[in-house]
Amino acid sequence: MTEQKLITPRKLSGFMELMPNKQIIFDNMVSKIKEVYAKHAFMPLDTPVLELSEILLAKSGGEIDKEVYRFNKGDTDICMRYDLTVPLARFVAMNSEVLSFPFKRYQVGKVYRGERAQKGRFREFVQCDADIIGQDTLPISADAECLIMVGQIFEALNLPALNRISNRNILFGYCEALGYGEKTKPILTILDKIGKIGEENARAELALLEVSDEDIDKLLKLTSLKGSFPYVLSAIENLTDNPLFVKGVTELKAVYAIMKAYGVDEDKICLDISIIRGQDYYTGTIFEAILPAHPEFGTVCGGGRYDNLAGYYTQKKLPGVGLSIGLTRLFDLLSQNGMLEDVPVTNITLQIIPLGDTLLNCVALQSFFQKEIVCDVNNEERSFKAKMKDAGKKQIPYVLIVGENEVASQTYALKNMATGEQFNLSKEDCLKKILEK
Amino acid sequence: MTEQKLITPRKLSGFMELMPNKQIIFDNMVSKIKEVYAKHAFMPLDTPVLELSEILLAKSGGEIDKEVYRFNKGDTDICMRYDLTVPLARFVAMNSEVLSFPFKRYQVGKVYRGERAQKGRFREFVQCDADIIGQDTLPISADAECLIMVGQIFEALNLPALNRISNRNILFGYCEALGYGEKTKPILTILDKIGKIGEENARAELALLEVSDEDIDKLLKLTSLKGSFPYVLSAIENLTDNPLFVKGVTELKAVYAIMKAYGVDEDKICLDISIIRGQDYYTGTIFEAILPAHPEFGTVCGGGRYDNLAGYYTQKKLPGVGLSIGLTRLFDLLSQNGMLEDVPVTNITLQIIPLGDTLLNCVALQSFFQKEIVCDVNNEERSFKAKMKDAGKKQIPYVLIVGENEVASQTYALKNMATGEQFNLSKEDCLKKILEK
Repeated sequence: MTEQKLITPRKLSGFMELMPNKQIIFDNMVSKIKEVYAKHAFMPLDTPVLELSEILLAKSGGEIDKEVYRFNKGDTDICMRYDLTVPLARFVAMNSEVLSFPFKRYQVGKVYRGERAQKGRFREFVQCDADIIGQDTLPISADAECLIMVGQIFEALNLPALNRISNRNILFGYCEALGYGEKTKPILTILDKIGKIGEENARAELALLEVSDEDIDKLLKLTSLKGSFPYVLSAIENLTDNPLFVKGVTELKAVYAIMKAYGVDEDKICLDISIIRGQDYYTGTIFEAILPAHPEFGTVCGGGRYDNLAGYYTQKKLPGVGLSIGLTRLFDLLSQNGMLEDVPVTNITLQIIPLGDTLLNCVALQSFFQKEIVCDVNNEERSFKAKMKDAGKKQIPYVLIVGENEVASQTYALKNMATGEQFNLSKEDCLKKILEK
Repeated sequence: MTEQKLITPRKLSGFMELMPNKQIIFDNMVSKIKEVYAKHAFMPLDTPVLELSEILLAKSGGEIDKEVYRFNKGDTDICMRYDLTVPLARFVAMNSEVLSFPFKRYQVGKVYRGERAQKGRFREFVQCDADIIGQDTLPISADAECLIMVGQIFEALNLPALNRISNRNILFGYCEALGYGEKTKPILTILDKIGKIGEENARAELALLEVSDEDIDKLLKLTSLKGSFPYVLSAIENLTDNPLFVKGVTELKAVYAIMKAYGVDEDKICLDISIIRGQDYYTGTIFEAILPAHPEFGTVCGGGRYDNLAGYYTQKKLPGVGLSIGLTRLFDLLSQNGMLEDVPVTNITLQIIPLGDTLLNCVALQSFFQKEIVCDVNNEERSFKAKMKDAGKKQIPYVLIVGENEVASQTYALKNMATGEQFNLSKEDCLKKILEK
């Protein structure tokens, strides 16, 4: 390896790689999310990152193809998964005979999109998904359970969030009632981008679809409704007796009643008819959570009800409802905005520093302390002073100094690095002192 | 989606995909391993699954190239990582100015090898690695810490393991002392495969390297030594005064002393001179753990000391020592041999079953119980009898039956599904009863 030409170490752009102290925070967030899912009896699933292209791209239009990492290995046409939903569909379809329904699974895993790298967009990112899949039917209480979990997750993450909820049948039914049943999708596409293009442009585009001015007014009035469930429900309840619309209202009432029974904080939810969600496959409840203090973050969690999870793979009807959190993007936003919880420099609680020939005693002490706390022995060939300085720089809360006198007396010098206090104590009392905190 | 041709759902061969109840056990194993690493002050790292091919293949011979998943995206030549060590080297070389050394990191992540699928070989598998990287120097206590962790991990996993330890300098020095310094590597290659090819063939191959019969005897005698550290150390101590050999003995004595001071169970370690480990890069301590009750499992954990982690990327000298557990393979072996801990069918502790119009009351109860336990409401459109049967089939320990009378009296029928006992209790007493277990 002498005189070898060095290769400049670098990583692919668009890939997040955290320093370990930030990774600890990321991992803590993952744990909290998993804990909420598990409490609601969701079970973990870990599908492969690679799938057969034939399977993974069954449902995609041209759009996703450009983004997907796809390659051949031997004769096999392979893709890296670009979400966790298609692999779930494949898994449930493959195993529908042995799974018991409703099937509640969560998956926290990396997904891949080879799109053009840009700020805030990642090519590899962690998604935290939970879905409930029924066979033939799935009660509306499943939708409510997902909505309840959204609230609990952001509470666990200590991030005040607002979950904006709607139901696709409201606008589907209303378009139908106005006589635009066949134009529902293009109309919703326009309404969905009203925030971007502005009301005037939206009006113009709707007019091009031959929606009358009067009906445009009605649609814009309906989609402008947002607020508490009782308020919005009473405003729309008698708008039309279109069966789809009525179904939407009934489902919204049901999820609201269940959320209330569970004790969901009413300040953390709202009924917002402007929520549309682009994806075609949602068919009932839809929701998007935001952080009201940071509207510029956009949607930090979204999801909804779909009629049929795995229609490409099985004739079984598998309705489902789920939610998804793009944690890599959220973490990046929190980090950029100084909103992460305190970033520890290390995870060490106690640093033991040997003085003189006391390494083996230090190791015995380490064994004792590690039963309770994170403890490290600094056995580097460096001066005592340098080691103390290093412990300070790393913000390690406690240092234990172990010289030959300490070993002889079995009392050790415990230094609280934050206050500068120093105690001479037995190992048991050192541990007590540390755990007092 | 009507009348559409179905695609048979299937996954790529060579990829493990567990049923969720087994995934819970897998995840528990991961947690236990991470806990040991974290207790020793290792910090988590999560490098991307994809790396630039130029970086990832810098050190590979031809062998790994065939196995690696490699593809182009636009102009970029990309590989999926085939281990966690090369990404670590890249990370440390990139960030050496900001990291503090010794740098202790663990990483649990999937790695990819597109080799021919065969029983027990996986193309995607989880590795659980921990490494300590020094700058310029790294004390031998780092090696001991890795050895200590191996023992703690298998204790945490409740798998009796034996860690077979050696030091490369022993055989390096001995070959040199016998006058075969330049043939050390081919000699070690032959000695390493003695278990596969048998002693006669090994002798013949060594003879082809022009090793004398007398020296072959000496080499085979040395590599046959295994047993307690004191026993083997006393047997080899005065074999030669070759400096490398003496260094090996000194290092083995040091790691043994530290392990003893820590309190490592002597029955779980041995000094075994036959341990060689194929990889070129090990330069000192080497080890391979096995499960003595299942020698056919082979090595379940291995690792060792290397002189220079990132010589391809930086001129800094970064010595390290680490260990690696191939968890996917180990889990598969445990599963095949019925050695997994009890596989729960679900993670549900309490299943609430509504009778009549009590869904909202059940949801309120679920909210109460979920503060402590995993609790699910079965709101399916099925008969009470079917739901009870389902709870039994899933081995859910407790069922709470909530009819209108129960709601009125605020006492609920709690059934212990294992014993068949049924209690009529307030929700608080139900919870107490369940937590008694």
